[in-house]
Amino acid sequence: YQKQLNYHLYAPPLPHSSNQHPHQLAINSFFLPASIRETLQKKSAAILQGPTYEVARTPEDLGVYHSLVVIDAPHHHSAHISKVFLTPSWIYKASCSLDGKAYCLLRIEGVHLKQGQGEVAIGQVERWRKIRHPSIVNVREAFTTRAFGDHSIIFAFDYHPLSQSIHDEYLSGRKKSSLFSPSPADHLTKSNTTSRYHRHRQTNGNGREGLVDERVLWSYIVQISNAIRIVHKAQLAVRTIHPTKILLTGTNRVRINGCGILDVIAYSPTPSVAELQEQDLIDLGKLICSIGSSIDCSSPNGHVLVQAIEYMQQFFSSDLHEVIKYLLKPPSSEQSMSRSIEGFMQLIWSKTLDEVTNVFNHNDLMEEYLMRELENGRLVRLMAKFGFINERPEFDHDPNWSETSERYVLKLFRDYVFHQVDAQGKPVTDLSHVLTCLNKLDAGLDEKIMLVSRDEQTCAIVSYAEVGRPFSSLYFSMMFHRCGFGSFFRFVG
Amino acid sequence: YQKQLNYHLYAPPLPHSSNQHPHQLAINSFFLPASIRETLQKKSAAILQGPTYEVARTPEDLGVYHSLVVIDAPHHHSAHISKVFLTPSWIYKASCSLDGKAYCLLRIEGVHLKQGQGEVAIGQVERWRKIRHPSIVNVREAFTTRAFGDHSIIFAFDYHPLSQSIHDEYLSGRKKSSLFSPSPADHLTKSNTTSRYHRHRQTNGNGREGLVDERVLWSYIVQISNAIRIVHKAQLAVRTIHPTKILLTGTNRVRINGCGILDVIAYSPTPSVAELQEQDLIDLGKLICSIGSSIDCSSPNGHVLVQAIEYMQQFFSSDLHEVIKYLLKPPSSEQSMSRSIEGFMQLIWSKTLDEVTNVFNHNDLMEEYLMRELENGRLVRLMAKFGFINERPEFDHDPNWSETSERYVLKLFRDYVFHQVDAQGKPVTDLSHVLTCLNKLDAGLDEKIMLVSRDEQTCAIVSYAEVGRPFSSLYFSMMFHRCGFGSFFRFVG
Repeated sequence: YQKQLNYHLYAPPLPHSSNQHPHQLAINSFFLPASIRETLQKKSAAILQGPTYEVARTPEDLGVYHSLVVIDAPHHHSAHISKVFLTPSWIYKASCSLDGKAYCLLRIEGVHLKQGQGEVAIGQVERWRKIRHPSIVNVREAFTTRAFGDHSIIFAFDYHPLSQSIHDEYLSGRKKSSLFSPSPADHLTKSNTTSRYHRHRQTNGNGREGLVDERVLWSYIVQISNAIRIVHKAQLAVRTIHPTKILLTGTNRVRINGCGILDVIAYSPTPSVAELQEQDLIDLGKLICSIGSSIDCSSPNGHVLVQAIEYMQQFFSSDLHEVIKYLLKPPSSEQSMSRSIEGFMQLIWSKTLDEVTNVFNHNDLMEEYLMRELENGRLVRLMAKFGFINERPEFDHDPNWSETSERYVLKLFRDYVFHQVDAQGKPVTDLSHVLTCLNKLDAGLDEKIMLVSRDEQTCAIVSYAEVGRPFSSLYFSMMFHRCGFGSFFRFVG
Repeated sequence: YQKQLNYHLYAPPLPHSSNQHPHQLAINSFFLPASIRETLQKKSAAILQGPTYEVARTPEDLGVYHSLVVIDAPHHHSAHISKVFLTPSWIYKASCSLDGKAYCLLRIEGVHLKQGQGEVAIGQVERWRKIRHPSIVNVREAFTTRAFGDHSIIFAFDYHPLSQSIHDEYLSGRKKSSLFSPSPADHLTKSNTTSRYHRHRQTNGNGREGLVDERVLWSYIVQISNAIRIVHKAQLAVRTIHPTKILLTGTNRVRINGCGILDVIAYSPTPSVAELQEQDLIDLGKLICSIGSSIDCSSPNGHVLVQAIEYMQQFFSSDLHEVIKYLLKPPSSEQSMSRSIEGFMQLIWSKTLDEVTNVFNHNDLMEEYLMRELENGRLVRLMAKFGFINERPEFDHDPNWSETSERYVLKLFRDYVFHQVDAQGKPVTDLSHVLTCLNKLDAGLDEKIMLVSRDEQTCAIVSYAEVGRPFSSLYFSMMFHRCGFGSFFRFVG
């Protein structure tokens, strides 16, 4: 009883994900941008984007990298002094001639590595190259160059189009003082901030205007701490858990950026890894407070941090407060030595499970989208076949295309699909009519249609299956025999 | 400096996922079928698949469900006595007329609910309806029917095309005795088993032929126990952790099936939920042993279980053995009361994190695939526009399409794209040529091409941008003015 595929029913959604509970759909959209299509196309565009302004002394090529474009937008007239690296730095997008892919090049300007330690320092990047994690911007390589007219070190990272730092997303464009006293001016400021992935932060789960959704915070915590765990396991420390170095690379997706840079430019032959690792956890605590309170806690000003912690305690759950307490407990306390990423992960195990659930749900949705889009690939191939066959000049005076031949029906079908006119003789440009017809043709339906010749003198009532027969025979012969049309017609005709 | 989108570069892969470490690609393919396209299309086909054989007494319609098809293939001549439900049962695929989606209907034959308890029992399903989880086959509804000529209860579940039970995947088609003494006959048997999602089980991570990859086992454990956690939280017990009731619905994706059925057909007004919940954990332990050892431990035969546990200890890690010990420790031990899903999850927290990493990596790959396929949608629209414009009968004697007009170039371009011939005059059917040309047209490149008329008397050297101009003006006029062509040409011509 098995019939041919009913392509004309056109990519039904996978039942289990389109049938999700409204509540669950809300959870899924947690990871899904308002329009995934729009976002993906913008990402495509960003990868291919040319320079939007010229920056002096940018070389055209740099080893295997070419088409360098400065992407560190706000600071394009002079180098940006990074708060983390404490040196002037530039960020470029570049294409690699080896694999044709886009990379992000971070250039540290005017570095002076200690005499005799240069190679060992640069070699630190090798250890980072081995770490690949979905919440880390992967390091590709590091090298020194004089192409910019100075001693620079270039770090090549994976390029994440449309990414935005936690700092730009949560900490810029707002007056700190307005946190506890929202003013009309503050609303204005907020609407001016460019939030790529959180268009509707005003109406978040907490119901409090402008407050970060606690679910988002937990998701960040799980993602970042999972990355920290991998790094610490490799006997390294992240050292860049800072609002300007955590990138939002998709809706609620974060990645740690700049890994390995400090291990090179602040190279020490005997690093105190344990201390640096503990600092990672303290930095994570500060980061959580910064995001939640919109107060930048990365500054050394202790008073700001206290204020932020109080804010967090007031507006977020006690679970979250426990986490912050664990991460930020003063070093004087006796239990301080037990602060480790492993211990921390055990503290948040149930949030981790929620994250697994969310990501699996998101996967199911992605699969559904992919399934729909796959149909387009089939249609592209089908329409290309039509293009190959129809109106071939070789057929112009061929008897096989005469009005009495089987193939003539293809011409009529083409008119039926694309050249419909309405009652007033106006052209009908209805894409859904085209898709329906093509899908029914592909499915070889027995449904009958009436094809009328242009002079309205000939009229044929045929099924989609009957149209499909000469269509495929002709096309496959063209494909596989590739003979001249004379011999071709002797063969199949 | 911003240029139009360079569509001709055609969907570059997202750098970070195509640039993954070989080791990491292996991890990603962990979730990715050999060919995601093939699998998704097979899933599409399965959803639409008609009956492959007739089964007597299958009604055409059943309330809102129609097109019932028996999908419980091995048992289609008589009802299958489920080992879990202990009653004859049938499984159907059906379409719902309310939402057009496919559902899986599980029919329990000849049920006799206790007098006066019928409605309350059926009502248990309401509690299950509220539970939606990516590792559970979601329950939609339950109702009684006489449409099959008896008293049946129908349970409607989400339909997961191409799913396969753990039992069919791991426990069928193998001789149990061959586990410790592989024989040539065994190899034959193994190659006959239909493994949808694990084509290459022979070469797994453990290096031992036929042994389940321990990473797969851990992934199952995390997924299933995460589902159990949600169910137990809702004061329910799963009751169907059994090899025949755990479905593989994708590569390494498992879902618990049949939830809620026992709560209805074995309804008790005072269920001992705590006991049933503990049994879930014991069942999970048996399930792990069954998968790992290929010995069906769900039978009450205690000796089989002991044998399986020994096997697990011999061939798998001590971590896994710890997990099994926790789940299967004898009820006589004092710590028995502390066996809970929460405690279990804390035991496996680090495996949970690995799972998060894997799923995020898989997400990134899915996004990349989606990005590639999105381009096809654009091409479909572009080719449809060509179809609308080219060879319109209305244009046949129109001076605007004469050989001197701007629009004539569209005709030549169409020949250039689709009707190329090679040096021997054979037709060239090169899809990549078509895609490149269309993408360059869409991008409006300045690249020049030479278009030659069919009689080779006219020759034009034009850029893609110049071809694109009449193309879009013509199409948009057709779209938006929808006027007859007489007035239309007066307007734009």
